[in-house]
Amino acid sequence: MRLAFGESLCKNVLNFMLIVMKRSASDDDVTRVLAKIEKLGFTSKVIDGNSRRAIAIIGNDGAIDPTKFESLSGVAEAIRITKPHKLTTREAHTENTIVAIGDAVIGGEDLALIAGVCSVESPEQVFEVANIVKKSGARFFRGGAYKPRTSPYAFQGLGEEAFKILAEVRERFGLKIVTEAIDEKSVDLVEKFADVIQIGTRNMQNYSLLKRAGRAQLPVLLKRGMSATVDEWLLAAEYILSEGNSRVILCERGIRTFSNHARNTLDLSAVPAVQRMSHLPIIIDPSHGTGKNYMVAPLARAGVAVGANGIMLEIHPHPENALSDGSQALTPSQYLQLVGELNAIHKLIIHPLKTVAISS
Amino acid sequence: MRLAFGESLCKNVLNFMLIVMKRSASDDDVTRVLAKIEKLGFTSKVIDGNSRRAIAIIGNDGAIDPTKFESLSGVAEAIRITKPHKLTTREAHTENTIVAIGDAVIGGEDLALIAGVCSVESPEQVFEVANIVKKSGARFFRGGAYKPRTSPYAFQGLGEEAFKILAEVRERFGLKIVTEAIDEKSVDLVEKFADVIQIGTRNMQNYSLLKRAGRAQLPVLLKRGMSATVDEWLLAAEYILSEGNSRVILCERGIRTFSNHARNTLDLSAVPAVQRMSHLPIIIDPSHGTGKNYMVAPLARAGVAVGANGIMLEIHPHPENALSDGSQALTPSQYLQLVGELNAIHKLIIHPLKTVAISS
Amino acid sequence: MRLAFGESLCKNVLNFMLIVMKRSASDDDVTRVLAKIEKLGFTSKVIDGNSRRAIAIIGNDGAIDPTKFESLSGVAEAIRITKPHKLTTREAHTENTIVAIGDAVIGGEDLALIAGVCSVESPEQVFEVANIVKKSGARFFRGGAYKPRTSPYAFQGLGEEAFKILAEVRERFGLKIVTEAIDEKSVDLVEKFADVIQIGTRNMQNYSLLKRAGRAQLPVLLKRGMSATVDEWLLAAEYILSEGNSRVILCERGIRTFSNHARNTLDLSAVPAVQRMSHLPIIIDPSHGTGKNYMVAPLARAGVAVGANGIMLEIHPHPENALSDGSQALTPSQYLQLVGELNAIHKLIIHPLKTVAISS
Amino acid sequence: MRLAFGESLCKNVLNFMLIVMKRSASDDDVTRVLAKIEKLGFTSKVIDGNSRRAIAIIGNDGAIDPTKFESLSGVAEAIRITKPHKLTTREAHTENTIVAIGDAVIGGEDLALIAGVCSVESPEQVFEVANIVKKSGARFFRGGAYKPRTSPYAFQGLGEEAFKILAEVRERFGLKIVTEAIDEKSVDLVEKFADVIQIGTRNMQNYSLLKRAGRAQLPVLLKRGMSATVDEWLLAAEYILSEGNSRVILCERGIRTFSNHARNTLDLSAVPAVQRMSHLPIIIDPSHGTGKNYMVAPLARAGVAVGANGIMLEIHPHPENALSDGSQALTPSQYLQLVGELNAIHKLIIHPLKTVAISS
Repeated sequence: MRLAFGESLCKNVLNFMLIVMKRSASDDDVTRVLAKIEKLGFTSKVIDGNSRRAIAIIGNDGAIDPTKFESLSGVAEAIRITKPHKLTTREAHTENTIVAIGDAVIGGEDLALIAGVCSVESPEQVFEVANIVKKSGARFFRGGAYKPRTSPYAFQGLGEEAFKILAEVRERFGLKIVTEAIDEKSVDLVEKFADVIQIGTRNMQNYSLLKRAGRAQLPVLLKRGMSATVDEWLLAAEYILSEGNSRVILCERGIRTFSNHARNTLDLSAVPAVQRMSHLPIIIDPSHGTGKNYMVAPLARAGVAVGANGIMLEIHPHPENALSDGSQALTPSQYLQLVGELNAIHKLIIHPLKTVAISS
Repeated sequence: MRLAFGESLCKNVLNFMLIVMKRSASDDDVTRVLAKIEKLGFTSKVIDGNSRRAIAIIGNDGAIDPTKFESLSGVAEAIRITKPHKLTTREAHTENTIVAIGDAVIGGEDLALIAGVCSVESPEQVFEVANIVKKSGARFFRGGAYKPRTSPYAFQGLGEEAFKILAEVRERFGLKIVTEAIDEKSVDLVEKFADVIQIGTRNMQNYSLLKRAGRAQLPVLLKRGMSATVDEWLLAAEYILSEGNSRVILCERGIRTFSNHARNTLDLSAVPAVQRMSHLPIIIDPSHGTGKNYMVAPLARAGVAVGANGIMLEIHPHPENALSDGSQALTPSQYLQLVGELNAIHKLIIHPLKTVAISS
Repeated sequence: MRLAFGESLCKNVLNFMLIVMKRSASDDDVTRVLAKIEKLGFTSKVIDGNSRRAIAIIGNDGAIDPTKFESLSGVAEAIRITKPHKLTTREAHTENTIVAIGDAVIGGEDLALIAGVCSVESPEQVFEVANIVKKSGARFFRGGAYKPRTSPYAFQGLGEEAFKILAEVRERFGLKIVTEAIDEKSVDLVEKFADVIQIGTRNMQNYSLLKRAGRAQLPVLLKRGMSATVDEWLLAAEYILSEGNSRVILCERGIRTFSNHARNTLDLSAVPAVQRMSHLPIIIDPSHGTGKNYMVAPLARAGVAVGANGIMLEIHPHPENALSDGSQALTPSQYLQLVGELNAIHKLIIHPLKTVAISS
Repeated sequence: MRLAFGESLCKNVLNFMLIVMKRSASDDDVTRVLAKIEKLGFTSKVIDGNSRRAIAIIGNDGAIDPTKFESLSGVAEAIRITKPHKLTTREAHTENTIVAIGDAVIGGEDLALIAGVCSVESPEQVFEVANIVKKSGARFFRGGAYKPRTSPYAFQGLGEEAFKILAEVRERFGLKIVTEAIDEKSVDLVEKFADVIQIGTRNMQNYSLLKRAGRAQLPVLLKRGMSATVDEWLLAAEYILSEGNSRVILCERGIRTFSNHARNTLDLSAVPAVQRMSHLPIIIDPSHGTGKNYMVAPLARAGVAVGANGIMLEIHPHPENALSDGSQALTPSQYLQLVGELNAIHKLIIHPLKTVAISS
């Protein structure tokens, strides 16, 4: 019965596994592997090579653990072939997912711009930036009420007070609000005051939070964990989709590597990889992805050129006074000039060269 | 006022910063940097080199953001010298921290052994293993009620049902129970039924959970995040200590690298690094750290030899039937033989060669 | 005398070092550090903080080893401030370096296109591709005579036979030839038959080869080592420049990380980093940088958008028959369409938005 | 004919490949894949799953490129099953390789100790250290004549002068000399004056050097590349073995990761991994592997405990005066105490617990 609990969760995950035998494996070794497969309720097929044999396990709906075989005599390796992804795959949903919040859209023809502040610090700061964001034509405003910080002694965000400021931005400027939830409780506040639930890199595998976001009424912007593979990132998205919320936007924000000239290594190849594997939209955060003001514009341009559905940017009217992450914020004039460039590159990619973009 | 909020959190974090000027910097550039420092309320000292100058910022109790200076004319780099760690440092607490749960101790003269199952699957499985753990002389039993899993379709743990089984192990075998909390709510259950709150690698920067654990009555076993530096790991521990709970045990469980022969790269140099920087005890988890049954015994031996305060191991009476992580569990006989080896190496390290261990 | 040998090599490398004392350091500890500095022939300056002291070492022309101080009583850390780079820095040479081979230029206003084959396989294959390269307006032809391969059993290149084919391409199509040297001897052949010496990722720290290339008459295209920081890469370039050859072109080709959806992680933030630190031109190799045909076009576009001076591409008339790396080669029609896109993005970046590109 | 050149090199490398079809693949798609396999001269077997099909390619002696299939319609992935390793595998040579230089042995029952200096600086320094090495019972002396250095301005080694000093150590102390070759020419000098050719981490994929070492009369100590997988490391060893020299000793010296508390991350799990896959002996270099004096002894103990065949250590009579890498050298008294510990741990691992070491 307890086994059934685990097994039933795995239903509909299709798997092949290949058991590669050693060259020295005897017929008895092969027979023992076949018996094991049969006992587990699966079927098998022996493949004779010139100098060694392999056994394919087929038709299994539940996940098979390779280690059930690797300890058997004569087995060289057991290789799982297919992946556990289900709802996030292109096989499940061939059309691109378009996330619309009212008439503001991520994943459609237009480049989505999400701009704003790193942390909400004061109404003045936020309104000043919102005014610039509005002017640029962007439809989304970002601002952190909670800031997950590596040090407990660093500024942690204004919390609930910030939500009221954000709600006022929504009201006054007609911008859609993107803000981070850091635990299940804070999802309630985001649902009340904002439009998109952001889940940060440190929480990409906070499964209680992912499940709660999966039951929310709002879209979820899911940042890539700083050491997550694209497969793991899509599995984190599966947690949200499997609870019923299919409006997930992925956000590449840099991964952790040995490379030390930027705060993270922005992995732009994740864009074509995600677009090939999944139907979900993907955007780029060059501000957190580099952590350096002078790198934001070039990497934002690169993010549009690689084909991302949107760009997330930070503006600070007076970056030198920011309480957090001042180093990566753009000044208003840098931001406005950059938006012009990004739209021009996007138009170039999408329109005259449309066929190329698709065939690549 | 809002600035004060951020600043006050930073109190008592001592910092030096060094502003290195370009060789081409003018006297005016230097003057501007000095004015900026003064405006921020800090004092400074100019250092004249042969071909360039540097400016030290001193006496500051709050954190200074290097980027406040890097954009000024003539500045080559701004380098933060000291670290934000406070309560976890050897400077704060020179003696080693010894965590005692009744008469069971981690961080003392004896090697602490924490053994058990990966997931609690059934009373029979757990009691069979607890019997072996007891027999080996280990004082701690580990068992997961909740299993954070990369895929939502993988076995997630028995949840509350598992806690009752674990409480029975405590009762019948006199073992201390180490089990994972995955969110704030589950800390309540761990406090009720167990002895040590484990925080897993994916939650190392789940700050809501860290703060809740900091207000708990039980010691916390904090696993290293799979892409965390030792500095970040100690800052995660700071979240717990700064809430009042100073009984934190660190657990190295492997980091994510390009190296692909094991599931993770067990970073044993973290042991002397932590022991130099911090007073907190540190243990090794070679089971999750390698993910391969055949690597567990050699790496457990290495963990003792490197000077860890304890080892965490997984046993499965029938590893080939485990619902999760069967690949890394030891059989009962492998486990018992290994415990003999570990105690022998520990004795060798601690006793006849005690002076060496200290001087190294 | 032997010391002088080492020291003289270090001449003109300017260094600051900061010795941070422990809070508990005594006046005697400070005195001992000062005495040590004096004994080594340097001068020092004590900086008094609120709760601890630091000592700056200044005016030193030779490199100081931090470990000479870290073992002294009372010392918390010894931090080297400046970097050993000399000839590759913007401080040494403020203008961008433009590498011209005849009228073909890398580092100027135009985007440099280096296209061709991975390995030279036959005259027919090479001429067919050279024809397409010529047609696209590219000025450089790439083709490997030697292929450093991970396995000794993989195709290693045609060697000398290939050089003759390449020389014929130069003659017939007027293209400049870029080809790899794998050891000192092969530099002789490249000098005889080609125009640019390529040094591959596995040889980025093959110092005998770098020194030989530094004495060559041709420009050197230096690929980034797959685990090299930008600092190390520039130091590898210093080996070439310090032998007298200042015509070095840097080539980002992806680094090794845990990320597994592409063969390497193309690190585009290296472009603004290099452009800030150095005067050398930098190009992008999206073919080797991703290892996947479907990623080449998007990442090539991103490489231009981020501001690289050129793009290196592989074409195979019949990619499915290539002896090596077929997976990443573009078909002729993919290539020609892509060149159109790249030139359009480059024009957009350079011309109407020129001021932005510079200010960012 | 040219194709045959490539193909013949691949002879005897046995491969399976599995082509996994998409769920939506048509019968025609399958037919096209089968036709392609036949055209390439291989045979195939179709495996029907519940919801998708896979096709195994078998009996192929030459390497198949997965990308030949991935671009075909209906193909989800093409997975290469077996690895290109041949001479280094346990399948090729089941017994452990024991490398003997006279009566000094690496890979036998005794722990091999290779100790000495990082760089040869003067006869006095070398003889002073050789005396300590001799006294400790070690049989191998290490000392660098050439030091591959990241910066061209750092001390590069004494070169030929150093060889004469090393030859004198061999003569006077009866120690076997291990020293690094950095290019083909320097192999000649090593062959003339020393006993073991060391190939450093930066040259692990310098194939001209590997091939030259493969034709040498001396054993080769091959350090792991700082970003090499174990598979790539063994393929580098294949270059040496395939030229006829089967006396290769592998040396783990740390890999490059994001972890920043040590210079490299010593990957001790490489020891059981190599021992499972290969018959070659493996040793540990904790000096370069950590770069910190205080980490060397704990990691050396861990290296013996994990089961390595030997340990390589650096001694400096006056570490504070070393021209390179002083930070990681042991003092003579630290070294002698450590050797006692290492031998004690080795005895414990090998003798009373022999069966455990083998079964693990």
